[in-house]
Amino acid sequence: MVDFARVGCIGELLVEFVCTSRNGRHRRAGEYLGPYPSGAPGIFIDQAAQVGGRCIFVGAVGDDAFGEVTRQRLIQHGVSPQLIRVVKGAATGSAFVSYNDDGSRDFVYNIAHSAASQFDVDDATATALRDFRLDVMHVSGSALGDPDMAAKALKAVRGLHADGVAISFDPNVRKELVGHPAYLGAVKEMIGMTSIFLPSEEDAEALFPRRALNDVADEFFAGGARAVVLKKGDRGAEGVTRDGERASFAAHRVEARDPTGAGDCFCATFVTLWANGAFNFHDALARANAAGALAVTKVGPMEGNSDLATIEALLRAAA
Amino acid sequence: MVDFARVGCIGELLVEFVCTSRNGRHRRAGEYLGPYPSGAPGIFIDQAAQVGGRCIFVGAVGDDAFGEVTRQRLIQHGVSPQLIRVVKGAATGSAFVSYNDDGSRDFVYNIAHSAASQFDVDDATATALRDFRLDVMHVSGSALGDPDMAAKALKAVRGLHADGVAISFDPNVRKELVGHPAYLGAVKEMIGMTSIFLPSEEDAEALFPRRALNDVADEFFAGGARAVVLKKGDRGAEGVTRDGERASFAAHRVEARDPTGAGDCFCATFVTLWANGAFNFHDALARANAAGALAVTKVGPMEGNSDLATIEALLRAAA
Repeated sequence: MVDFARVGCIGELLVEFVCTSRNGRHRRAGEYLGPYPSGAPGIFIDQAAQVGGRCIFVGAVGDDAFGEVTRQRLIQHGVSPQLIRVVKGAATGSAFVSYNDDGSRDFVYNIAHSAASQFDVDDATATALRDFRLDVMHVSGSALGDPDMAAKALKAVRGLHADGVAISFDPNVRKELVGHPAYLGAVKEMIGMTSIFLPSEEDAEALFPRRALNDVADEFFAGGARAVVLKKGDRGAEGVTRDGERASFAAHRVEARDPTGAGDCFCATFVTLWANGAFNFHDALARANAAGALAVTKVGPMEGNSDLATIEALLRAAA
Repeated sequence: MVDFARVGCIGELLVEFVCTSRNGRHRRAGEYLGPYPSGAPGIFIDQAAQVGGRCIFVGAVGDDAFGEVTRQRLIQHGVSPQLIRVVKGAATGSAFVSYNDDGSRDFVYNIAHSAASQFDVDDATATALRDFRLDVMHVSGSALGDPDMAAKALKAVRGLHADGVAISFDPNVRKELVGHPAYLGAVKEMIGMTSIFLPSEEDAEALFPRRALNDVADEFFAGGARAVVLKKGDRGAEGVTRDGERASFAAHRVEARDPTGAGDCFCATFVTLWANGAFNFHDALARANAAGALAVTKVGPMEGNSDLATIEALLRAAA
């Protein structure tokens, strides 16, 4: 068996608070659970480390207790903190989510003026990433919404892509930004460098309206990509590779308690197991599908991340 | 009976979250209650309005749900929102408090880079304050910790002081800043303009170490002040006026659930009832002492604020 992949990721680190009373829309006092370590890129790298990846992260937190919550969680699971900056005098980024009976969610964010985007992508960062000998660098589209963070993520990815590092990309589209040329430009530049494309169905519909998976995948393969995987939420996942492998899975039936982070967990599991051939396409996707199911059973964005043994146990129980 | 005072205040508006699990120090996920409207100046003006003051506030919130929580609470209680700015794209200031079994508290703040200090003190503000025909303008020392906010608060107070408006000042000393010349300079400039001085015992000890109340009060009276009142927490309060009135009260015995905000509530009750003679010194101080006791019985910084009828009811019950 080969070693698992060496995986990098870049973007916002946050803490998240989850409101346990419904329909409050953050406009009246209620009960919240937190601070949970969060940020889509943070959820991704935590899971990549949990399933056995050698991981490094480029991001920033404030020099407060919330920053420690997120930073220490990643360290605990083996992520290298070398490129996680602790910004003096800045508040750690935060997100508050509240659920409504009509299925909608309300958010309050403190990201734009927080520590979250205050990481460096300079020559030292590029050298450290090169020295880490990455197999794959992952970007979540959540990091492209902030122009400053997007510029730094793209700069890092350009260098690694030029060095031959595979790029995986979860577009995680922010629909309200699709009309902004700068945002759409960043997404398109990422797509042009992508080796592993991991959209949700909503992402695929926003970026490639009314087009079938095969059709979109062929376009990616023509551009040099190796795999396209479609995340279908509670209807499972399906994917196809440039080499003609195909796999499709129904979702595991679990009690969904908090869907946040399941997509990031799915992506991390797939990328880490498949990027350098530790698992074949079918088996890596099966494990990603199981990891995504486990992720929704716990409250908190990365509380439902799980190690490979737990994932294998779910697969055995389901067989 | 004369009308109650016309009261102004300036400084930070926040939301606060209170951790209900102890000893977590914000470093592990726990249960929090919030968002509660907060900020010492906000607590003050809410209580001033609740006991019948005509109130105006100079401050700022972000254009998010948390900002609405605090702004709407003040509006609900009759505070004029004319000078409360809603800052586009900024996060509302926030504070997280967690209690420990050893009596200490841990805080996480997002204030410096939040909307909290982004209010204007320009000619239009000065005109609006003058048109409001204030009897008294209050400053909490909490607003002096941030240099930008301190400069704006001092600018507003200087103008009003020159116009003959009485200034009340709760030094609310931040001990860790006493060594900073700029902070101490702001506190001293405030003291020089103060008509009603309302320190806690800790404040008095930090600013006038080992000096008796009478001694400190005489110094204030020589400088033009009208009253000095010492807040002694769970041992009550005592005060003295330039005209030689004295009063001293033991604290009411109540179940203390959350001490945050009790001092601000005390100051607001006293200032609003006494500044223009609606109550005599003894009676105003008795009501401030009762309001402070009521304040600690509720979780949330200004949730324990109360109207005059509730305060009178406590006094009757205690008699």
